[in-house]
Amino acid sequence: MITGKNYIGNVLASTGKTTFKTFNPQTNTENNTIYTEVSDVEIQKAVELATEAYKVFKDVSGIKKSEFLNKIADEIEALGDELIKTYCSETGLPKSRALGERGRTIFQLRSFANLVKEGSWVEATIDTAQPDRQPIPKVDIRKMMLPLGTVVVFGASNFPLAYSTAGGDTAAAFAAGCPVIIKSHPMHAGTGELVASAIIKAASKTGMPNGVFSNLNSSGIEVGIKLVQHPQVKAVGFTGSIRGGRALYNMAAQRPEPIPVFAEMGSVNPVVILPNAAKNKGADWAKTYAGSITLGSGQFCTNPGLILGLKGDDLTNFIHVLSEEIVKIEPTCMLHPNIIGAYESNKTKMQEQQGLKIIATLNKDVANNYGRQIITTVEGVTFLKNTTLHQEVFGPFSMVVQCENTAQLEEIISNLEGQLTGTILAGNNELENFSTIVDALQNRVGRIIYNGVPTGVEVCQAMVHGGPYPASTDSRFTAVGINSIKRWVRPFSFQSWPNELLPNALKNENPLGISRVIDGKTTTDSV
Amino acid sequence: MITGKNYIGNVLASTGKTTFKTFNPQTNTENNTIYTEVSDVEIQKAVELATEAYKVFKDVSGIKKSEFLNKIADEIEALGDELIKTYCSETGLPKSRALGERGRTIFQLRSFANLVKEGSWVEATIDTAQPDRQPIPKVDIRKMMLPLGTVVVFGASNFPLAYSTAGGDTAAAFAAGCPVIIKSHPMHAGTGELVASAIIKAASKTGMPNGVFSNLNSSGIEVGIKLVQHPQVKAVGFTGSIRGGRALYNMAAQRPEPIPVFAEMGSVNPVVILPNAAKNKGADWAKTYAGSITLGSGQFCTNPGLILGLKGDDLTNFIHVLSEEIVKIEPTCMLHPNIIGAYESNKTKMQEQQGLKIIATLNKDVANNYGRQIITTVEGVTFLKNTTLHQEVFGPFSMVVQCENTAQLEEIISNLEGQLTGTILAGNNELENFSTIVDALQNRVGRIIYNGVPTGVEVCQAMVHGGPYPASTDSRFTAVGINSIKRWVRPFSFQSWPNELLPNALKNENPLGISRVIDGKTTTDSV
Repeated sequence: MITGKNYIGNVLASTGKTTFKTFNPQTNTENNTIYTEVSDVEIQKAVELATEAYKVFKDVSGIKKSEFLNKIADEIEALGDELIKTYCSETGLPKSRALGERGRTIFQLRSFANLVKEGSWVEATIDTAQPDRQPIPKVDIRKMMLPLGTVVVFGASNFPLAYSTAGGDTAAAFAAGCPVIIKSHPMHAGTGELVASAIIKAASKTGMPNGVFSNLNSSGIEVGIKLVQHPQVKAVGFTGSIRGGRALYNMAAQRPEPIPVFAEMGSVNPVVILPNAAKNKGADWAKTYAGSITLGSGQFCTNPGLILGLKGDDLTNFIHVLSEEIVKIEPTCMLHPNIIGAYESNKTKMQEQQGLKIIATLNKDVANNYGRQIITTVEGVTFLKNTTLHQEVFGPFSMVVQCENTAQLEEIISNLEGQLTGTILAGNNELENFSTIVDALQNRVGRIIYNGVPTGVEVCQAMVHGGPYPASTDSRFTAVGINSIKRWVRPFSFQSWPNELLPNALKNENPLGISRVIDGKTTTDSV
Repeated sequence: MITGKNYIGNVLASTGKTTFKTFNPQTNTENNTIYTEVSDVEIQKAVELATEAYKVFKDVSGIKKSEFLNKIADEIEALGDELIKTYCSETGLPKSRALGERGRTIFQLRSFANLVKEGSWVEATIDTAQPDRQPIPKVDIRKMMLPLGTVVVFGASNFPLAYSTAGGDTAAAFAAGCPVIIKSHPMHAGTGELVASAIIKAASKTGMPNGVFSNLNSSGIEVGIKLVQHPQVKAVGFTGSIRGGRALYNMAAQRPEPIPVFAEMGSVNPVVILPNAAKNKGADWAKTYAGSITLGSGQFCTNPGLILGLKGDDLTNFIHVLSEEIVKIEPTCMLHPNIIGAYESNKTKMQEQQGLKIIATLNKDVANNYGRQIITTVEGVTFLKNTTLHQEVFGPFSMVVQCENTAQLEEIISNLEGQLTGTILAGNNELENFSTIVDALQNRVGRIIYNGVPTGVEVCQAMVHGGPYPASTDSRFTAVGINSIKRWVRPFSFQSWPNELLPNALKNENPLGISRVIDGKTTTDSV
């Protein structure tokens, strides 16, 4: 079933010369299938097909788009065990995680299907004419959201389903009316091809134009660069490292026509443990956080990599229990050789920083591709002086910063880079006494959590997954939830346009029955 | 009343060494007042004050912000004749335009005041907890929009009131809760200082924190560069040339922490005259367009600089009448020496292009700072080959492109850069036969107009003023209308946050009585 080829529109192609294989972290060996990296001719063809497809797809009705999205979900389900097995063989993640992520992916697709079927998401806004207005007549203006054009989505190594081929970026782009070209992640190219086949089938079965989707294999950075620089590509979605995301952002900004790049990148997700929380529930939180830090071998963008507390016996106890608990956890293999390699070298770099102390590390023989958890600690003043200590170590790593006082804690928070999340652990009625801490943290993050863990990103409309740079390249958008569709659309106005030629969303009669703003009032009435 | 000094917060300061004067185009001489360019120390102080002010201003209630915005409008009105006289002496524009633009500016301020007083603009979204959900409980998540931080706004030379000191960018930023630092336009520094004094008074009278506003004089590009590169500046609004806007965009993108720049830049605003429109109403349209092209000496960003038609007798007649009509119009002085200089050199550059014919030019002695209108024409094939012909000539200039056929017309439209507007002039029931033309045009513009002129940008919620690059640097936002507030805000989530510590917009009780989305349903109910 997996061919190792690229989908250039609905055609499987492999004219390229470069090949590569994926890697099975469970067996610590390469998988058998040979993947052919997409050729320049194929890239060009995929973009041309997408450009043509856009002309049709942009006007496809919400109902038809919802059929397409739901059919993708059906076809992914129909892949059955082959998908789950391939997923596990390319990630080393357990079957339960594969099933959970598949469920999340399907939920996302169906959420967007519901959104576009209902249709009000286009933000239809109508200001009617006032021909008698003085001193000049008012013209009729009607606005709605239109798709930007072809979107390139980069597969994410840590979410082969939910943030990759048919993940959130893709679902949102299809819902918006944008064709999608996937730069498949090389380490789960098989999972990617299977999901791609589901999308291709769904597109065919629901009558979507050829070119609405392509899936490109690539083992290096060249394919991504060519896509981001292609004049017919209009937006980019990326989830991954700061280095990778920033490089794409820079490239897109330097184009003759700059395009938006929504890159969801690194984050250390600071957790502040306030005095009463440390005093009264320190041990409980320590146990909870031992789990959160090591969840999925720490390979979540919301992994708590930084814990900030006020120096003293209670924090010492918290650290003590955290150290005891974390070494009890069985380590697991990491996603692929690059990830484990980066984890090890980033850990080493951290350990070389003056003033950093290791307080817990796994004292046990495990395979060399297993993520060995580690807890470190550092004084607040040391942390403030050395921004290397602020950087993410992607994996089961966390650092406890022992602050001298609240002022130093606030200063540290204010000096952090932008983050996806910030968490505050507080005792009863304690939070209100730390409003400057809350304000400082709010200013640095996209989501703030009270007495919980940052891992676990609920897919819902109120979720913000994004944040000040470098959590994301544009904090004005979220990558999770139905509002993430806003990344791929632009508002467009029709002035004095004939009613019968307007899109249905803007016609007087409101044939879609959607909620619209007419002369400032929200209504489902006709004009 | 005008001091020539900078407002660094509420303090007038002039420690800088560089001075400059504004220019009166009516008398073709410099005005008397000496303006002192802001010093580096003053820039730093303005940014520090804004950073401190943000901590308070971000949480100021919608009602208090609306008082501030309405008071700014009141104080601008209270400036009375001095403002109008200064405006005219710095622009050469007639009193009627000054009054009209003041009215527009006040309308914008009051529109944003109404928006924030009502309060639903924050897009409050609540997903309630489901503690019993399987396999894992659902947490309570609540989202709303928060201000980005300090916004720098560049005064626009062609709109000293509506797109400058207290113009749309500033009003939107204040409404969002962002402090504003103005890089005043040097050619209307007096108008700028007067309006700044009105803002400072309004801020004081309504209890806004010092630093919520500063007004910086500058005659060159250095001040703007320092502001855009300052780490505490979080967003930029600009209206002006492509060269200027792109330079700021590049600078912002290259910062360690990139920030959004919304630059509304050049546009030639293509107008397509379809065969029946040329045949049946060609002379009428020619008269209308002679007026639109020369309105305000062509110094509008929506000026129709490009007219596309199908070669033949009807288009020839249209050109003939347009040529006759345009020379009847009395030219007026242009805004300032740089504008007239650029207009003359851009005209000359166009006239040097092979294949361009001048078909109407003013044959009359006028002062050398008057914008002499000119109409040119070129064959479609010539236009396609030479992108210099696609560039904007800011002033009373337009070019009629004579296309061989509909296919060439479509190709030309598809090859245009992004535009603020596109217009189609059509006969009865003619538009439906040109759907590929409409599609192509829609793809290149932010607003499409049927049987009208692009000049005249209605300030209303359905307006899109923006468009694909280079019309603007980010087509996903509009610079006009209340939705322009979205440029300066980001979504933010609170997870499991104590109800009493949530912002009012997200509290269970809905104390603001705003419209919110609770578990997917829009309602004003409490949770």
